Amino acid sequence: MNQQYQQVVQKLEEISHLNGVMSTLGWDQEVVMPSGAGEARAKQMAALAGVIHERMTDLELGEGLHELADRHWQTLDADEQCNVREALRNYELETKVPKQLVMELTELSSRGHAVWVKARQQNKFADFAPVLKRFLALKKEWAQCVAPDLAPYDANIDLFERGATMATITPVFERLKQELIPLIAAIQQHADRVDASCLQGLFALDKQEVLARKISSDIGFDFSQGRMDVSVHPFCGGSHPTDVRITTRYKESNFVESLYSIIHETGHALYEQGRPHHLGDLPVTESLTMGIHESQSLFWERMIAQGKPFCRHYFGLIRQTFPDNFRHTDADAFYRAINHCKPDFIRVEADEVTYPLHVILRYEIEKGLFDGSMAVDDLPEIWNESMRRYLGITPPNDTVGVLQDSHWSAGAFGYFPSYTLGAIYACQFYNAMLIEHPDIACEIANGNFVPVKQWLNDKIHRHGKRYTPDELVRRITGERLNSDHLIRYLKAKYGEIYSLTL
Amino acid sequence: MNQQYQQVVQKLEEISHLNGVMSTLGWDQEVVMPSGAGEARAKQMAALAGVIHERMTDLELGEGLHELADRHWQTLDADEQCNVREALRNYELETKVPKQLVMELTELSSRGHAVWVKARQQNKFADFAPVLKRFLALKKEWAQCVAPDLAPYDANIDLFERGATMATITPVFERLKQELIPLIAAIQQHADRVDASCLQGLFALDKQEVLARKISSDIGFDFSQGRMDVSVHPFCGGSHPTDVRITTRYKESNFVESLYSIIHETGHALYEQGRPHHLGDLPVTESLTMGIHESQSLFWERMIAQGKPFCRHYFGLIRQTFPDNFRHTDADAFYRAINHCKPDFIRVEADEVTYPLHVILRYEIEKGLFDGSMAVDDLPEIWNESMRRYLGITPPNDTVGVLQDSHWSAGAFGYFPSYTLGAIYACQFYNAMLIEHPDIACEIANGNFVPVKQWLNDKIHRHGKRYTPDELVRRITGERLNSDHLIRYLKAKYGEIYSLTL
Repeated sequence: MNQQYQQVVQKLEEISHLNGVMSTLGWDQEVVMPSGAGEARAKQMAALAGVIHERMTDLELGEGLHELADRHWQTLDADEQCNVREALRNYELETKVPKQLVMELTELSSRGHAVWVKARQQNKFADFAPVLKRFLALKKEWAQCVAPDLAPYDANIDLFERGATMATITPVFERLKQELIPLIAAIQQHADRVDASCLQGLFALDKQEVLARKISSDIGFDFSQGRMDVSVHPFCGGSHPTDVRITTRYKESNFVESLYSIIHETGHALYEQGRPHHLGDLPVTESLTMGIHESQSLFWERMIAQGKPFCRHYFGLIRQTFPDNFRHTDADAFYRAINHCKPDFIRVEADEVTYPLHVILRYEIEKGLFDGSMAVDDLPEIWNESMRRYLGITPPNDTVGVLQDSHWSAGAFGYFPSYTLGAIYACQFYNAMLIEHPDIACEIANGNFVPVKQWLNDKIHRHGKRYTPDELVRRITGERLNSDHLIRYLKAKYGEIYSLTL
Repeated sequence: MNQQYQQVVQKLEEISHLNGVMSTLGWDQEVVMPSGAGEARAKQMAALAGVIHERMTDLELGEGLHELADRHWQTLDADEQCNVREALRNYELETKVPKQLVMELTELSSRGHAVWVKARQQNKFADFAPVLKRFLALKKEWAQCVAPDLAPYDANIDLFERGATMATITPVFERLKQELIPLIAAIQQHADRVDASCLQGLFALDKQEVLARKISSDIGFDFSQGRMDVSVHPFCGGSHPTDVRITTRYKESNFVESLYSIIHETGHALYEQGRPHHLGDLPVTESLTMGIHESQSLFWERMIAQGKPFCRHYFGLIRQTFPDNFRHTDADAFYRAINHCKPDFIRVEADEVTYPLHVILRYEIEKGLFDGSMAVDDLPEIWNESMRRYLGITPPNDTVGVLQDSHWSAGAFGYFPSYTLGAIYACQFYNAMLIEHPDIACEIANGNFVPVKQWLNDKIHRHGKRYTPDELVRRITGERLNSDHLIRYLKAKYGEIYSLTL
């Protein structure tokens, strides 16, 4: 048995190493690749993808995994079981889908992206609708192949948020909606109570970068096992826990965006750097789900860096860095400014109060598309109506409405919920940490982030894929996914900032 | 037949794409990889190397190639024949060597490098000698496998300089030795006739970089299909003719070194960017040999950039960039300064007059080691004695003597001759260009490098691997490899600079 497990491990590590290579190519493409190299790079990535697919569908691997799962399961320890379980799932995801369907999905992704870019530019949803319809059909077919027992949309969600289903998500999102819509309306009535004008002006790019590097390093990013660079869209990539690469973009007119984006990516990076890679380059060491990953980025971006202790600690440095901009501002005013809440059209620019409604709107649409209660052609109208009901604003066109996100152009249905599941988890984790470390706010105010990072390392990062998200959140917080924490947090925080009587 | 050729092409292109991926990993490792990622990267590269080896030794590929070579040769056009011929050679290089020997060579390379680094640091040749002896034995065995018809050293040379043998190289090197030893001695007697003190001082790194980028771009480097970065050792890498990456290092105390190193690497890069990649990612489009590659870097570095017209064109800009350093210097003095000749211990720092003797010394040692006329243990003595006879200086220790180069620590015997073959080719090509374009010096003096680059593109780059080096040099110059051109060039140039009566 041991020999069989070792053979499987060898194959899985090879796949992991080749995936690491692919990630390096991806980073290179976004960050340093010469503009003229796109065509050659596409061929190189396709060749490597072919090899990885070949390895992932290796019959010997499949047989070995099945053998281990069916005949030797009890002889495996928990980590080994996790490796076999996850590898088997990956194997089945790769092998259960007919080649014809895989090819059609790949082709549509690449074509779909181009169609979407143009449709968004030209504000022509009708041009994008056929792609969306086709994707919907293919993704239903795909769901039937990989998880015939699940509702098609649940199978899609499961790809990003293992174990989550509409049955678990819907009530949680309903609660959120119920509470956030009136909260946002109340904030809007007193919008003038927060003055964010200190964030306007010009902020030298080189100073922004120095600040970003310092804060990222302070909160724990290990530059000897990672890099920070510039790219068009911020992301966290890299090939291995010892090679984690985050990016941001610097705008002269908006230093808060780039700073909080780098804190966000640092949160992802700390998860990656904290993975238990001493256990080998194997599934058990990998990050859990998109939602849990997002909980780590949002933990740092929102729970920590948008909090008062953090603002108090860093405001001196920020004012020192940009003296002209913050001459007449103090730490509390800065805290209020970065937390001002304003409904707007674009999800990626939304604040923490309005963000969940952007997600819920998309979730409801995806759900409706999959269960047939909504039609693709009606989406612009549905979108705008939901925006009006949830946020009180109506997009002036589809470019900043239903066409704004790239996800559907790649067939990524079921991805959006992760963002808000991440926000809910982040708040649950944060409260659990506060209970265990009541003085942690003082540590943060003193610039000591070690206990926070240690807590996350210990509670989340080092467990890799050992538990399901549900098991993990229950181990840490003693309860299931529960949006009450996020609701209470938002009400308390914004009630104070906007002096609301809630 | 056509179908068979297409199948082979598909396999060869896959190998080329995967090799491109490997090159990107290599660049990444040298230029941007975090220091802590070395172990993970080694595993990723090993996994990819395994895949590439598997593809290169694919039995179907071998059969297809043999079939095309044996049964359909006459139906292939010249480019197709080149692809089949080169691919067959690569296939045989990969398959003719027993796995045991490949593994031992790989293991020794990696261990040998570490042993060499330490031995060089500690000036202990005796610690490195066992590695060298073992490599010698293995490389003789290897030669017997891949080219039983060639003398073992010739088989090693052939790997770097296809078709070159001791029979062709020795007389050419003998001529060079005969002429250069007295030339160098004569220069040394009048060393005081060139004052290079203007090159001493401090040169701001950011200004060096601006200058390097401008000059590289001026002479033709296409930054939309390439990059320029900083690394410990300058090199030209990249994954494809549309993705060519050069590096240099900037020293505050030596701007000439970094500038001429970037011109050197630009020469390599122009060759890569000039490859006929419209013919597919196939052997025919690849660069010819190490020697021809080096001819391209030396063409730009020495023939062009160390020439008077180039110095006259750029001296104004250089003085403008570093006004304090060149206040009392003119273009002619600058030309003389960068061309001062001084025997020294280190090959990589040698000038164009003494460089060939560094190479010849190593060539004679490799030849002696392979034919048994020299023993590894005697190398320090042989080395120092040759240095004394050729350059009139004796290394104070082995660190700057026999231990200085890394090549032998990786078993790369037969590589050194390429450097000087490149210098000879460069001079032959240069003279051919002068004859075809008698006014080209004026173009260079006016900063117009287009005709030079075009000529090289046309005569060399666009032919890829179509011809042997011998065929190529005969097509371009009408004669074979001939060191007389280099000798005449050096005598004329340095006779003038040092006012010698030769």
